Amino acid sequence: MQKILVANRGEIALRVMRSAREMGIKTVAVYSAADRNALHVRYADEAVYIGEAPSNQSYLVGDKIIAACRQTGAEGIHPGYGFLSENAAFARQVRQAGLILIGPSPEAMEVMGNKLSAKAAAMKYNIPMVPGTEEAITDVNEAKNRAVEVGFPILIKAAAGGGGKGMRIVDSVADFEEQMQLAVSEATSAFGDGSVFIERYVSSPKHIEIQILGDTHGNIIHLFERDCSVQRRHQKVIEEAPSATLTPQIREAMGKCAVDVARAVNYTGAGTVEFIMDAQLNFYFLEMNTRLQVEHPVTEMITGIDLVKEQIQIARGEAISFKQEDLKIIGHAVELRVYAEDPANNFLPDIGTLQTYITPKGPGIRVDDGFEQGMEIPIYYDPMIAKLVAYGKDRAEAIARMTRAIDEYQITGITTTLGFGKFVMQHEAFKSGNFDTHFVKKYFTPEVLQADDEDEARIAALLMQQLLSAAKTTVDNVAGDESDWVKKRRVM
Amino acid sequence: MQKILVANRGEIALRVMRSAREMGIKTVAVYSAADRNALHVRYADEAVYIGEAPSNQSYLVGDKIIAACRQTGAEGIHPGYGFLSENAAFARQVRQAGLILIGPSPEAMEVMGNKLSAKAAAMKYNIPMVPGTEEAITDVNEAKNRAVEVGFPILIKAAAGGGGKGMRIVDSVADFEEQMQLAVSEATSAFGDGSVFIERYVSSPKHIEIQILGDTHGNIIHLFERDCSVQRRHQKVIEEAPSATLTPQIREAMGKCAVDVARAVNYTGAGTVEFIMDAQLNFYFLEMNTRLQVEHPVTEMITGIDLVKEQIQIARGEAISFKQEDLKIIGHAVELRVYAEDPANNFLPDIGTLQTYITPKGPGIRVDDGFEQGMEIPIYYDPMIAKLVAYGKDRAEAIARMTRAIDEYQITGITTTLGFGKFVMQHEAFKSGNFDTHFVKKYFTPEVLQADDEDEARIAALLMQQLLSAAKTTVDNVAGDESDWVKKRRVM
Repeated sequence: MQKILVANRGEIALRVMRSAREMGIKTVAVYSAADRNALHVRYADEAVYIGEAPSNQSYLVGDKIIAACRQTGAEGIHPGYGFLSENAAFARQVRQAGLILIGPSPEAMEVMGNKLSAKAAAMKYNIPMVPGTEEAITDVNEAKNRAVEVGFPILIKAAAGGGGKGMRIVDSVADFEEQMQLAVSEATSAFGDGSVFIERYVSSPKHIEIQILGDTHGNIIHLFERDCSVQRRHQKVIEEAPSATLTPQIREAMGKCAVDVARAVNYTGAGTVEFIMDAQLNFYFLEMNTRLQVEHPVTEMITGIDLVKEQIQIARGEAISFKQEDLKIIGHAVELRVYAEDPANNFLPDIGTLQTYITPKGPGIRVDDGFEQGMEIPIYYDPMIAKLVAYGKDRAEAIARMTRAIDEYQITGITTTLGFGKFVMQHEAFKSGNFDTHFVKKYFTPEVLQADDEDEARIAALLMQQLLSAAKTTVDNVAGDESDWVKKRRVM
Repeated sequence: MQKILVANRGEIALRVMRSAREMGIKTVAVYSAADRNALHVRYADEAVYIGEAPSNQSYLVGDKIIAACRQTGAEGIHPGYGFLSENAAFARQVRQAGLILIGPSPEAMEVMGNKLSAKAAAMKYNIPMVPGTEEAITDVNEAKNRAVEVGFPILIKAAAGGGGKGMRIVDSVADFEEQMQLAVSEATSAFGDGSVFIERYVSSPKHIEIQILGDTHGNIIHLFERDCSVQRRHQKVIEEAPSATLTPQIREAMGKCAVDVARAVNYTGAGTVEFIMDAQLNFYFLEMNTRLQVEHPVTEMITGIDLVKEQIQIARGEAISFKQEDLKIIGHAVELRVYAEDPANNFLPDIGTLQTYITPKGPGIRVDDGFEQGMEIPIYYDPMIAKLVAYGKDRAEAIARMTRAIDEYQITGITTTLGFGKFVMQHEAFKSGNFDTHFVKKYFTPEVLQADDEDEARIAALLMQQLLSAAKTTVDNVAGDESDWVKKRRVM
């Protein structure tokens, strides 16, 4: 592979191109009308326009991606995450076109893309699952018997469900019948189907996932865990590696399970096996993501492995460049997703122009982003501006560096998750490691951000003054003309 | 220590303040008239104006630094490197003022600040020295006898010398008398003193230095070596850790020597013991630098130790936070000093305004700098803009990342060492590790940069077009109005 096409945009397109460039591989960007001035277009060796801004007219159109490969001579496609990255039909199309997808086989995507087939595959290796019914139930008495078998608290959820409709948590058998009836009637009216599943309700759940790599020589290796429990709108916003709470024994057991899940589908490339873990460190298989994750950098920081390079090498038919026993966790890494969204307004997207955009630097700080000052965050796509990653010799240092880096990060023109990130870093529950996926619901209110907002506004105002003054001042006239800003700070 | 004053400017002032902030310590900046808009002033919690731009009216005036501490209540002073950092008189003044200098004792500075007393201290521990005369010689016959004892090739150098005057390399005894006479007459006319030293000439020398830390509890630990052999104008420009050529045995031996040198002066804080090493890996003590080095980040990258935090902890009377046996070299790091100077014009300073200034990002890249776009590089100080550090799992990856990062670094308005850095990264002698302090003299000519200059000019032009276009374009009018730049790159 001398040239690869990156079928994505934003920070992940840049991320992939950086590794490709370091390997001496030429890169091709694709871009929609909204991204014609995007950084990933500028970064690539070549760029192909693939259509209008809505993804279904550009980034999601497999035919256009393949045509762009033909045109540019790209031999491989890196799909990044999202878009076509877990689309088995596209993976098959790429294979049929005689091109190489830098990712797993369409067969593996298919099995893991469906909850039932994924569970069936995992069961062959006795991977722990959340205890519960395997088939949908409508009969109240049968359901009650199964609930007693599973053990309380239990979760009743609509078989046809989604969005929390027809979902009930039941703490004891005494409440069961009433709650079941409510769930069934809700499910019937919402989906026209009153059948439900029953499963153990995991209270105080942590989201723990294991990074794995598989190659075409049959090697499958895990790269330890990431804790992605701090979520908002059921989506990750802060991740770290390693987890603050895992023991070496549990880590090894989860790693082995993840490798087994991958083995069940002869997995090749980078993938992630997700688990839910309770406060007693019991863990249960949730699903497998058959792509590079957004939060892969924290794993790179603690292992020293460049996951994108491994993906490309595996796609070229090479073996993974290291052995399981070579890997060791060194230090600790925390990632904050810097989103263009308003934490004070339910984390709703807040797009606009990056009027000021200055990223933090110095020891232990890595920024993966896709924007520069003056650019707009398009309304069409995921509103992530950057991933801010802080590395330290231990968790306390990583958190201290993250806090310091958040303070250094200067963004005006758009509301972001930076202030929220600082709130989390300074929260005792986070610092102690004693938190779960309910962190935001439990602890976060918009009021906690206000003090910091004012501080940021003040700094932004000072900065603007300072920039204007810098534009006026020359080395020659240093004697006169001090900016108000300097006067304010000057002590002597 | 709740508050420290950083008696420095530029990147190292920021570097120190970042660690202080991570430790919850307040910071005070000092600044000259030329630095009133500098980043280190903005970064600090407080800032004190200390005088006109020339260093001897501001950064070198100990009284003003101490007065600034009094005014702000700062209890400790971090001197960075340069300026007052190795000034024993200042260290004594700080002590007498009841303040804490974050650095070694004045006594240690004094011994190591003088070549003769430094050598005398090192000799107590049998540290290898370049073989040669200990006293100045004027008599030709005596000199010849000593030269034969020392062994050829030898170096004759003026006792009162400097700048290469009165210096002669002699390959064999047959040439000795003639060269000695030339050296003596040159030295006499240059310095009014014809006496010379004779020492073994180390051909193919590498500059290898060992980072050490000592605390007030008697612990002295080394943090392995840095190879700083790539120099221009006898000054370092590219450094790396570990060295490409050291064996574990030599590393251990050098580390032990460095610890012994530090022990000879009861060293506390961070220091560096410099050695010259020949092609057969014989090494000889050169000198000890009693401060934090410019190139300390490469050591931080491969050890995971924050050297500034250790300095501060040691100054507070704490023990070093780790043991010698805890340390391991993980990966490889390379640093390029990005100077405002013109490699095509003998590396002479090229100050001016940073019209474009965009730093590289992504995996393995650390940038320590003190500037932002639009700022000027003042003429009064060292013209270093930034330290670009690349880390990788091995040397090849670190070099690949450095090359990639140099390509990403966008500076216009000032000529820099970036292109030179890329030349070195791509040079076979550097890649193989087979280079010495003569690298620049041997391999570098301004012509090698031309191709890259053109490339940079082209990219800069495209960038300007693109920025202008971004300013005009809005998401709404994406259909029309493509920038020339996008057209040029667009394939479809």
